[in-house]
Amino acid sequence: MNISIIGATGYSGLELIRLLHNHAYSKIVSIHSQSQAGQNISDVYPHLKGIMDLTLEPINPTLIMEKADVVIFATPSGITSQWINKFYDNNFPVIDVSGDLRLKDTNEYEKWYKKSSAPQNVIDDFIYGLAEFTDYSKNKFISNPGCYATAALLSVAPLIMDDLVEENSLIFDGKSGFSGAGKQPTELNNFSVANDNMTTYKVNSHQHIPEIVQQLKNWNSNVNAIQFSTTLIPVTRGIFMTTYATAKTTMSENELYDVYQNCYKNKPFVRVQPLGEFPSLKQVIGTNYCDIGISYNAESNKLMIITVIDNLIKGAAGQAIQNLNIMFGLEETTGLDLVPVFP
Amino acid sequence: MNISIIGATGYSGLELIRLLHNHAYSKIVSIHSQSQAGQNISDVYPHLKGIMDLTLEPINPTLIMEKADVVIFATPSGITSQWINKFYDNNFPVIDVSGDLRLKDTNEYEKWYKKSSAPQNVIDDFIYGLAEFTDYSKNKFISNPGCYATAALLSVAPLIMDDLVEENSLIFDGKSGFSGAGKQPTELNNFSVANDNMTTYKVNSHQHIPEIVQQLKNWNSNVNAIQFSTTLIPVTRGIFMTTYATAKTTMSENELYDVYQNCYKNKPFVRVQPLGEFPSLKQVIGTNYCDIGISYNAESNKLMIITVIDNLIKGAAGQAIQNLNIMFGLEETTGLDLVPVFP
Amino acid sequence: MNISIIGATGYSGLELIRLLHNHAYSKIVSIHSQSQAGQNISDVYPHLKGIMDLTLEPINPTLIMEKADVVIFATPSGITSQWINKFYDNNFPVIDVSGDLRLKDTNEYEKWYKKSSAPQNVIDDFIYGLAEFTDYSKNKFISNPGCYATAALLSVAPLIMDDLVEENSLIFDGKSGFSGAGKQPTELNNFSVANDNMTTYKVNSHQHIPEIVQQLKNWNSNVNAIQFSTTLIPVTRGIFMTTYATAKTTMSENELYDVYQNCYKNKPFVRVQPLGEFPSLKQVIGTNYCDIGISYNAESNKLMIITVIDNLIKGAAGQAIQNLNIMFGLEETTGLDLVPVFP
Amino acid sequence: MNISIIGATGYSGLELIRLLHNHAYSKIVSIHSQSQAGQNISDVYPHLKGIMDLTLEPINPTLIMEKADVVIFATPSGITSQWINKFYDNNFPVIDVSGDLRLKDTNEYEKWYKKSSAPQNVIDDFIYGLAEFTDYSKNKFISNPGCYATAALLSVAPLIMDDLVEENSLIFDGKSGFSGAGKQPTELNNFSVANDNMTTYKVNSHQHIPEIVQQLKNWNSNVNAIQFSTTLIPVTRGIFMTTYATAKTTMSENELYDVYQNCYKNKPFVRVQPLGEFPSLKQVIGTNYCDIGISYNAESNKLMIITVIDNLIKGAAGQAIQNLNIMFGLEETTGLDLVPVFP
Repeated sequence: MNISIIGATGYSGLELIRLLHNHAYSKIVSIHSQSQAGQNISDVYPHLKGIMDLTLEPINPTLIMEKADVVIFATPSGITSQWINKFYDNNFPVIDVSGDLRLKDTNEYEKWYKKSSAPQNVIDDFIYGLAEFTDYSKNKFISNPGCYATAALLSVAPLIMDDLVEENSLIFDGKSGFSGAGKQPTELNNFSVANDNMTTYKVNSHQHIPEIVQQLKNWNSNVNAIQFSTTLIPVTRGIFMTTYATAKTTMSENELYDVYQNCYKNKPFVRVQPLGEFPSLKQVIGTNYCDIGISYNAESNKLMIITVIDNLIKGAAGQAIQNLNIMFGLEETTGLDLVPVFP
Repeated sequence: MNISIIGATGYSGLELIRLLHNHAYSKIVSIHSQSQAGQNISDVYPHLKGIMDLTLEPINPTLIMEKADVVIFATPSGITSQWINKFYDNNFPVIDVSGDLRLKDTNEYEKWYKKSSAPQNVIDDFIYGLAEFTDYSKNKFISNPGCYATAALLSVAPLIMDDLVEENSLIFDGKSGFSGAGKQPTELNNFSVANDNMTTYKVNSHQHIPEIVQQLKNWNSNVNAIQFSTTLIPVTRGIFMTTYATAKTTMSENELYDVYQNCYKNKPFVRVQPLGEFPSLKQVIGTNYCDIGISYNAESNKLMIITVIDNLIKGAAGQAIQNLNIMFGLEETTGLDLVPVFP
Repeated sequence: MNISIIGATGYSGLELIRLLHNHAYSKIVSIHSQSQAGQNISDVYPHLKGIMDLTLEPINPTLIMEKADVVIFATPSGITSQWINKFYDNNFPVIDVSGDLRLKDTNEYEKWYKKSSAPQNVIDDFIYGLAEFTDYSKNKFISNPGCYATAALLSVAPLIMDDLVEENSLIFDGKSGFSGAGKQPTELNNFSVANDNMTTYKVNSHQHIPEIVQQLKNWNSNVNAIQFSTTLIPVTRGIFMTTYATAKTTMSENELYDVYQNCYKNKPFVRVQPLGEFPSLKQVIGTNYCDIGISYNAESNKLMIITVIDNLIKGAAGQAIQNLNIMFGLEETTGLDLVPVFP
Repeated sequence: MNISIIGATGYSGLELIRLLHNHAYSKIVSIHSQSQAGQNISDVYPHLKGIMDLTLEPINPTLIMEKADVVIFATPSGITSQWINKFYDNNFPVIDVSGDLRLKDTNEYEKWYKKSSAPQNVIDDFIYGLAEFTDYSKNKFISNPGCYATAALLSVAPLIMDDLVEENSLIFDGKSGFSGAGKQPTELNNFSVANDNMTTYKVNSHQHIPEIVQQLKNWNSNVNAIQFSTTLIPVTRGIFMTTYATAKTTMSENELYDVYQNCYKNKPFVRVQPLGEFPSLKQVIGTNYCDIGISYNAESNKLMIITVIDNLIKGAAGQAIQNLNIMFGLEETTGLDLVPVFP
């Protein structure tokens, strides 16, 4: 497959470059950036010297469609919606890592993103590519889930599908490393402020809330609302999601384990931890794994689920490649057979 | 006041030394350590060179009672219970920073701490010194709360006292820096493992659970159980507590703010944040402050409260000094009028 | 003393506010900021809520001279030179923490700072306030040394004064935390880039080089040039300076120790470590201490000196207060009797 | 190639497992550990679940020689010397990542390592595998260089070979992340102590000093002694080496650049940076690259060279695989064509 990447200088774009370098069946044929077109990527990022020396090009759909078999948008929100029509009209395969094509309701998009939505017909034809549950038959246009959404949804999919918890008891306490917030310098990500610190942001207003609710409703229409919080932690990579839910009926942890195991037994990137073990963040960094630890507290009748992912991989570039593999009929793990960088 | 410190080489002991150095009405007359008796404290800790040059002594209650007006235990659990009788029998003032004298039910102590309890009559006479609510009339024997417990209890005191939330909906998602786990090297606190990592530990088994439940029941007897989790984050100091609760009735955030403001208006160390603002961890480090940010989500009918403290100060040494001031009739803020170390 | 601070919202300004809060003989009567005038400082910095609630004012020398006894500039370079004349002409006491008045040669200033210099007559009347060596008799106008320069100069003062090392063999390998680079967000201080990283910057072009050479020449006119490097390390505070020099003659470490001890024995903030011990960075953080560890390697005939300071205290605000104390005839340690924040 | 790893649970062993997982021509057939034999490696290290599930075996040379084509020792010093004879006597290929077989003079080994040396005849037949300079014709027994030594030697090889600097002016100021010190918990690597800290250790006594001097003498017999320091920095991985040397004659930076470029032009893992650019630590992490930035200061007549490597890869496991490739006649880059993990 020949691949073009739009938004190659962002952190998700860089991670696509990193992972695709060792993907046996793909080749990056062009990289695009609105702001840094004309520069060699290895001048912008010295770590790429001797590895990739492509020049960043402006975004040009016609040229991309000539050279490539698929385009991946790894852009901030608001860019895909501007450029999608040309690709869509030509039925050209697209994977969108941004949030532009995730919400089926354009009003919701405009409410949460405060930007103009892509056209409804385009949105209708994109599928939400939570890769463990991606529909293989309808996969020319894939919208890649958000990083928090990936961790949140994988943490409760078995519970919601099996109707085991009170639908409106779900609480997602998400913690994210700073790479999730992108490369733009801000007061908050200044090292002197970020180091040794934690900050909760976008309380009840994070744009991943509606896509999580949308997908939960797909699985179980009784879900109406969730509680969801996002906190910055002083790590570069990783999402550490603690999920709480109230059980519908008393259960044993063994039953709970079977439910998860059953759901994920054929999913190579989800590793359900043995009972009594909970994943540390670092045990997935550098990989596409999503590790899940589960518990049930009979005293409080609450479940606590710990879910960890590398936000730039399973939460962005890795899942995009997983979807790319699905799109092209390859083994899901192609190019993603990675060992965590530990320590 | 002349003060003796038992357990002076632990992190809470060191912080007592640090803070009492600038306390106008107190003087450390002796420091004690079982394992390092005979050494000069500034040889063990070079940062104290030229500041404190006392020699660490073995624990000797008789000598302590001769020299000092009060003894502070800053020891791991299991030490105070061994040495408390002599002080208690002599009606000698004690502040215990360890967990040995917090639980009124000795069976609970033995269940959660897996150690022999102190005698029931001693425990009965110790008061639980959550300093904002310490009983001024009964304060010769004070048991200082745990660090997580301090943050958890201050986060919900106004809610529980005013009966605003479902009693058994409380979820405390606690994150702690590594100094909370003490100075003993372990596999978990090895920098290569701890850095860039997060790990949840003691799931449903942390020893601060029963003291939180005990105090919540004191405030509201309908509380039966809580959900409580503890996660290590890569910072040295600080507890970042995210508390969730289900509202009994719909409320406005303004009402919520008034409830908190009313409860804490005369408490110099609790700073309720303006609506819409949430405290970052770093804004209290180096001080005895407990900063609280509050929110109510009408969609999920849940409150989310963010509470931050410096675990070694408000969660240990600082609160002990606050209690010491109360014990001796001083201004509560004596020696604790500190400005956060920011950045 | 009534004090006005210009540049109160920078990190050195914040640290002045923090330290002066517990200085018995001083009071901050006004705080000034060009960019944030009109805002309450505690709205800009929530950690100051309930501690300081002054409103930031524009810079107005006339008003400052009415209210205050001394003004401290804690500004980036280029500001003091714009505002100094009015204060100087009125013979009003000034401590300048910026680099504007350190270099006696205005050409050197313009070469290294790429800005217009303050007038020569003003510069002539300012003394270089390396506080351990500040001239008590001429101290109405004090220029506070740079953070790297403080560590570098204190590391070799005894060697240069006693003529023990080859004058042109000096190598200063300086490592600094990010707070030294100020609060402005940049690509380099973005946490995702800064964390787990080290970067050497301004190779052979750092503006502290000429002030170090100037002071070394004052001590020993044979010094011509130094080798000096500056590297960012992933800590918030602290300078860790490793100094190398070639010995003029073979020496013993005991002799070396005596030279340092002799030089610093009456300097309360310089703690020469016992032979064989080297200071860790953290043992001075939160204080005005400069800790120095010394070694001599007979095989290579080289000395290695390790010097650590808190860049915002001994390297900026603390040394400014030390100079303030000298200026007003107070004990040098007034307001600076602090215990390191450890751990 | 079938490979056995002795010392598989140490950080170098883990990194060998990680890197060899994607090495097309090799397979790990057994893993060995003295202390953890009998356990499944993925129980000890949960990040390996589903990736490697071999059981750790005791060290048994006979069985290893039956199953494997080569054995790699990734052990602490003192282990290889105990087990080497059996392999050596059978002429069985060995790569030793420990320090046991690097020093040709057994007295030197015993002086610096304080342990009994391996036999002289074994040592004589091992070559020092600084991979860029490994002798291809004599490579059945390879001793892999130390991490600091790798960075130090690559930083000056062109200078020493071309006789450009004063032989006894070399100063290596090495900074290392904590993974270099291994997995054993200690007072120094406790996160509360290590975070925000820097500590210089083993002053003039680090065991990499003699292997650096030995190799420098091989290149230029006039080298007698070096100045070498080692400082822990709060990062997990990486060595950041700052090297200083006095030029023999005035030179231009362009000449200097040509010397380095010439030396390393055919070395795929050494990336000489363009003049004026210096490598940041993070630009090599996760790879076998050694990036070098060079400068010459005409004022001080000194060169400053910045060299960065990932201590666990180019400083240990990666270089071992590079040597393995050389040993078996493969492309040097096999299994090592990695992109830095940035950010």
